Amino acid sequence: MPIVMLKPGDISVKTERGSTILQVIQRAGIPLASICGGRGVCGKCRVVVVSGGEDLNYLTNAEIRLLSPRDIEKGVRLACQAKIAGDYVSIYIPEESLIVSRGRAIAPVTLRDDIFPLNPVVKKIHVKLPRPTLEDNRADFERLREALVKQGVKQDLVIPLEVLRELPFILRANNWDVTVVLYENELISVEPGDTTNKLYGVAVDIGTSKIIVHLVDLNSGVTLAEDSLENPQLTYGADVISRIMYAEKSQENLIKLQQLVVSAINRIIRDLAERAKIDQRNIYEVVVVGNTVMHHLFFGIQPSFIARSPYVPAISRSFKCKSREIGVDINSQGYVYSHPVIRAYVGADGVADILATQMYKLDELVLTIDIGTNTEVFLGNSEIILAASAPAGPAFEGVGITYGMRAVPGAIESIRINNSDVECETIGGVKPRGICGTGLIDLVAELHRNRIIDDLGRFTAVNHPRVHIEEGLRRFIVVPAEESATGAEIYVTLRDIETILLAIAAIKAAWTMLSRKLGVSPLDIRRIYVAGSFGARLNVDSAVEVGLLPPISKERIIFVGESAIVGAKIALKSSEARREIGDVVEKKIKYIELSADPEFRDVYVKSMRIGNKS
Amino acid sequence: MPIVMLKPGDISVKTERGSTILQVIQRAGIPLASICGGRGVCGKCRVVVVSGGEDLNYLTNAEIRLLSPRDIEKGVRLACQAKIAGDYVSIYIPEESLIVSRGRAIAPVTLRDDIFPLNPVVKKIHVKLPRPTLEDNRADFERLREALVKQGVKQDLVIPLEVLRELPFILRANNWDVTVVLYENELISVEPGDTTNKLYGVAVDIGTSKIIVHLVDLNSGVTLAEDSLENPQLTYGADVISRIMYAEKSQENLIKLQQLVVSAINRIIRDLAERAKIDQRNIYEVVVVGNTVMHHLFFGIQPSFIARSPYVPAISRSFKCKSREIGVDINSQGYVYSHPVIRAYVGADGVADILATQMYKLDELVLTIDIGTNTEVFLGNSEIILAASAPAGPAFEGVGITYGMRAVPGAIESIRINNSDVECETIGGVKPRGICGTGLIDLVAELHRNRIIDDLGRFTAVNHPRVHIEEGLRRFIVVPAEESATGAEIYVTLRDIETILLAIAAIKAAWTMLSRKLGVSPLDIRRIYVAGSFGARLNVDSAVEVGLLPPISKERIIFVGESAIVGAKIALKSSEARREIGDVVEKKIKYIELSADPEFRDVYVKSMRIGNKS
Repeated sequence: MPIVMLKPGDISVKTERGSTILQVIQRAGIPLASICGGRGVCGKCRVVVVSGGEDLNYLTNAEIRLLSPRDIEKGVRLACQAKIAGDYVSIYIPEESLIVSRGRAIAPVTLRDDIFPLNPVVKKIHVKLPRPTLEDNRADFERLREALVKQGVKQDLVIPLEVLRELPFILRANNWDVTVVLYENELISVEPGDTTNKLYGVAVDIGTSKIIVHLVDLNSGVTLAEDSLENPQLTYGADVISRIMYAEKSQENLIKLQQLVVSAINRIIRDLAERAKIDQRNIYEVVVVGNTVMHHLFFGIQPSFIARSPYVPAISRSFKCKSREIGVDINSQGYVYSHPVIRAYVGADGVADILATQMYKLDELVLTIDIGTNTEVFLGNSEIILAASAPAGPAFEGVGITYGMRAVPGAIESIRINNSDVECETIGGVKPRGICGTGLIDLVAELHRNRIIDDLGRFTAVNHPRVHIEEGLRRFIVVPAEESATGAEIYVTLRDIETILLAIAAIKAAWTMLSRKLGVSPLDIRRIYVAGSFGARLNVDSAVEVGLLPPISKERIIFVGESAIVGAKIALKSSEARREIGDVVEKKIKYIELSADPEFRDVYVKSMRIGNKS
Repeated sequence: MPIVMLKPGDISVKTERGSTILQVIQRAGIPLASICGGRGVCGKCRVVVVSGGEDLNYLTNAEIRLLSPRDIEKGVRLACQAKIAGDYVSIYIPEESLIVSRGRAIAPVTLRDDIFPLNPVVKKIHVKLPRPTLEDNRADFERLREALVKQGVKQDLVIPLEVLRELPFILRANNWDVTVVLYENELISVEPGDTTNKLYGVAVDIGTSKIIVHLVDLNSGVTLAEDSLENPQLTYGADVISRIMYAEKSQENLIKLQQLVVSAINRIIRDLAERAKIDQRNIYEVVVVGNTVMHHLFFGIQPSFIARSPYVPAISRSFKCKSREIGVDINSQGYVYSHPVIRAYVGADGVADILATQMYKLDELVLTIDIGTNTEVFLGNSEIILAASAPAGPAFEGVGITYGMRAVPGAIESIRINNSDVECETIGGVKPRGICGTGLIDLVAELHRNRIIDDLGRFTAVNHPRVHIEEGLRRFIVVPAEESATGAEIYVTLRDIETILLAIAAIKAAWTMLSRKLGVSPLDIRRIYVAGSFGARLNVDSAVEVGLLPPISKERIIFVGESAIVGAKIALKSSEARREIGDVVEKKIKYIELSADPEFRDVYVKSMRIGNKS
């Protein structure tokens, strides 16, 4: 099998002859610029052949048109045009060929949801039955079942009572010409005529703050429409703990939280179905992912024991029930399926991330990290994956920080400090009102890089024009009063910086602990997947500077954005994927309860020192 | 394997050494008198050794005590004492050793419900779980599941949402000491502490006129209590056709009929549970049998297409659903299971008969017949069984007969005619009010035997003192006015006799047709099982005389009474039995639609001639 070595970073990718370098780079998860989608038109996907150029195809007409003679002389090729024709090529990806967004080196890539062959759990089969006669008066269900067996259905079918009650009438009203819908071995619907082209499913990522829903055509695998809504449970607390506390007060509260999330999902599904011009009754399955608390609340399971030591969920393996049992509006016999969860604070969203990144298939050491109030950390490869939850707390959501805020328009998401010069970018490009998580990480990194604070976060550059003292405490003025949206200064205090360092330390301590458990150094990590919408806005240099991520070369850090919904869609479209990730969870993933580890406290304290020198 | 030949009838039975002759005779289904239950006390089970006496054990002390020297000299042994010690014994069973009841040669035997090893589908397992700790904070369901796997549970368990919602609380409230209830691979209940000794099931035979319910302890296999109620659907028609007509008028009517039968079953279950001092929530399964119309109405399936050619049921294979789906009051996650049905007029009761008689295991040719408004006829053996339905009509229920009535007190159930002497026996021994089915068959047989009617049912003995003419039509006075309960004569007319002959002919034509299809003569039949409560009161001599049954020796005709409920109990107690009868239905039983057969009309007409000479 040919091997392509990608530089910088020395990522080696096995591939097939005939693959383009663009395909190889995309498979490696590196977000190469390719505006025209690989049609040889935009000329953006420039790479440099380091060695093995003879193992590639000749220059194409597109390359001769789009590259200068000097480019060609230097070994530049267009990744979409260069195809593997031999056994080994080494390729350098210049930084300017990477997708650049909002001043960050690497923008999130969308992981592919078609890595498994399309084979949804729910299937449709169109059958025309022989009309019954006195000589052949088999029962309706037997007639149908035997026709399905002839068409290759192997399972021993069962039929729900309600469908059975309708069956005789549907068969006769439609001249014995019907389409059956199978969910595993259950005949969940019988529809008039041929409806095989109407087969849809829905993937849902129930985030603590946002619910994302995608509508998928299960015949083509194509996502027809997608949308998101704020999680209406936010009224009952921004974090999962307050929601647990509300839910456990009474059964009514639990039901209220459940209904809030279910009706939000229903609202989006209704809307998506309308936009895609499909009938909701032709949606037969919903695959949900979410953290363990969202998972329990969605299914109406009291999450009380998640909140208390020893933090035990009711169930961790994949779970399904009829959608009607929890009020999700799809086909009346349809199913809701959830990915497994790992533990109380490593949820089905984390499992979906693992499925989407496929880290369990890689030989190299991979860190997958989903940064949030509860940061989920996975470290491992095809042999074993250690999982842990890092209680980072809500600092990255802006909670507990004087001018902290959530990542909404007006939040500073990026900060550059050059001596006395402070440059801020806000979400939406409007006047700043506060600082969101990525801005806070940038801020700490830049303060440290400019030696305004020391490794412990203490102000050292006391004479810096932006460092003021108010009521005996030092603060750093991020935005002067006249530049802010509110007309007041936006600043950080020593206390704010300590809060951020505590949150960073929790995450750093988590991957440090997992490295130790695995007997490796964080420097052995060859790839980092950063999942979640927080990660999407993160400045990788700053993240490494403050020690949020281990110090490895930028090309090896891949921001995968909302990978949980991708993992949900993969499961929606492939029963093999479900089995595979189920096996991985059961056999490969080992959960480490950090709070139970005597070493953890020590590592945590040491991690509060800024940087990756520890 | 030793062989015992039973005479008269030459029934050969394979057995093991050490078996008693009583066991052999019981296995052959012959109702030998054995008042003491085989303890060598009553001395009633006398048999005569024809040959092979040396292959039996020596006379026991009980025999020496209970038999006279003359008996011993003649070869008499007590069946419960004589044990097989060699290879071949031939035994004669004197008529006086058979159970005699109500003047009939052979009374119904109760078939055994323990022919399969006790292995109910529903199982209980008591587990004590390790309490979760920070080091072992697996989810509750995983903790439970893994403990069950350690105790030998092989299946990949699933848990219903409602049980999952309760699980965390039940585990913690009971100190992690619980009993789980498994239905196949579904964890249907988790109960506090050790409840393994509380495991019950219910068997129900839904007859058109009577509902029989047995409560069974699934730990011991013992029937704890039984009862029956009139089917309350009777208000909507005595026969299945009028109930179909009522049900198909509206969905409300269907639901009404369903609720009637379900609430009758619930009433009996409540009563039985009270009598047996058990909690209904510890009943986890109900196995129902019934004809196809009763089956459909019970499940709330419109039976419309059963009533119309080509007579198609909605489903024929075994079916199960949660008991709550149809409102049966047992454990909230319990199941209702129905035996398969064969066709519109060969129902789950017929299948239960086949399971109870085990005719599909016999090498000899067996006829199983369940006489009623729709008589079910099965002819075959271990190779193949042909099934048919004979539309006998309601004549045997007394419908369409001037003085016909159902088998209730006051009905003449037995008639003997000796020249001018007519002797009647009524149910309950009270003054006669009319004649029920068995009485009508006796009457036709006796009229024919005494040559009062000819082979076509016409009055020939016009001078017989009981033959009167009224309005130009002949009638036979069964009971003079002064002897009847009403003070009016009880008689039969030529028209009455013709109606009875038509009913008999339908049944006779059925087994005649099946014999032809099988390429055998009715005389080749080696055993007849007569099932159903009608059969229980039937006089076998009369039945043969009129041609209702083929002419084979009496010992080979076995009245098995309510064998359908036995078949239901066998399935309740053994999942192997379910699989086995399911296979038999699918692979061995071939349904013959008599009304579709061009020969049938002719055979039917010929069958209207009285007797077995045709």
